[in-house]
Amino acid sequence: MPREENPYLGWRSIRISLEMPEFFKIQLRAILRAAVHGRVRVMFPMISSVEEIRRAKELLEEAKEELRREERDFDPNIQVGMMVEVPSAVTLANQLIREVDFFSIGTNDLIQYLLAVDRNNSKVAPLYEPLHPAVLTAIHETVQAAKGAGKWVGMCGEMASDPMCTVVLLGLGLDDLSMGPFFIPVVKRLIRSVPFAEARAITRDVLSMATIKEVKGHLFDGMKNLGVIELMEMYH
Amino acid sequence: MPREENPYLGWRSIRISLEMPEFFKIQLRAILRAAVHGRVRVMFPMISSVEEIRRAKELLEEAKEELRREERDFDPNIQVGMMVEVPSAVTLANQLIREVDFFSIGTNDLIQYLLAVDRNNSKVAPLYEPLHPAVLTAIHETVQAAKGAGKWVGMCGEMASDPMCTVVLLGLGLDDLSMGPFFIPVVKRLIRSVPFAEARAITRDVLSMATIKEVKGHLFDGMKNLGVIELMEMYH
Repeated sequence: MPREENPYLGWRSIRISLEMPEFFKIQLRAILRAAVHGRVRVMFPMISSVEEIRRAKELLEEAKEELRREERDFDPNIQVGMMVEVPSAVTLANQLIREVDFFSIGTNDLIQYLLAVDRNNSKVAPLYEPLHPAVLTAIHETVQAAKGAGKWVGMCGEMASDPMCTVVLLGLGLDDLSMGPFFIPVVKRLIRSVPFAEARAITRDVLSMATIKEVKGHLFDGMKNLGVIELMEMYH
Repeated sequence: MPREENPYLGWRSIRISLEMPEFFKIQLRAILRAAVHGRVRVMFPMISSVEEIRRAKELLEEAKEELRREERDFDPNIQVGMMVEVPSAVTLANQLIREVDFFSIGTNDLIQYLLAVDRNNSKVAPLYEPLHPAVLTAIHETVQAAKGAGKWVGMCGEMASDPMCTVVLLGLGLDDLSMGPFFIPVVKRLIRSVPFAEARAITRDVLSMATIKEVKGHLFDGMKNLGVIELMEMYH
């Protein structure tokens, strides 16, 4: 791998895969074959344009064709999704959703790019903020694009497991939150404790707010009124 | 300065200024005093939130107050603007424009963050694309926010001096393009050669397109029909 000045803006993920199709197709063939034995889906990361997702899908079709020729078992109807983690994918969400069966919002990278903050850099880590109004708007637009096309949208990244974000993620309409097992009990209990209509109302309010402070204040008040702040305290 | 893993997502620009207010105010005082002698405006870079622009403006007011106390000449009505170069600033453009007199779109950084591409990295530089549909949408939204508030919006960054982009920048409604002297003749001649209504029509079309290839194809055809392709050839 080359040494890079800004690896987060560099040669990574799908960018490597698309330049090394023979290597990429070995992975795709393995996924296609594994899908015979259980529930497996394929999801392409770091997509920044319609061209990229189309090229990735072409290679998936080539991998299927190879397996067909070799008469190997595989799942020809495997679901295909993509990560929404590059800001341009949010902008193009309505076009990109036509190319896939589902979206998964990758918040760790998405927040980094939207706010231009490397969260591993202690000098700027305080600026990394999942409840920044621009982050909430980006998630909202992505969810709306998926729902508008009748498709599902999940989230991976730390935001999905942050109980302070659960009410708003519920209100935004995410279908699926991916997290480590440690976080499941508190997030599950929060989701069960908050009526969906209330989560929607709080979310509608915060989406109109201009500052992080207003968003956090309103969210905290809303959770207090719903009596779920003690769940947060249990967790912290 | 600390050594950083991803300097473009790191401690730079206004982030340093806001953490070193005494150092920052020396610069602001100098700008305020220089403005007595000519047309000077102040513009804050890398703004990613409403909080940041408000804090920068507070420090500007403090600098004015210091100069007032010291009975020094300065321009108390200096125009204040901000760069739109972090994607979150595009999302918040309607809120941010209320805080300033003008926007300047910094395309070099904005494109890098929107597409997650370090343009100085040869492995991914081909992905750096000013005519990416998400870039055009971001510029469009920023211009609309400024115009809606009756304020002006300029552009700096290499895109402003790229003749292939001039027609679309004209059509998007930019008031001001900043560039090196070498580029002025061709861009000026392009602007003078293309009727505004035609630029608007071409721009409206490209804003609805999903791929870079469609955008470039349509733009090229439009310029050919307008008879301005030879200006491009003269330049290249």
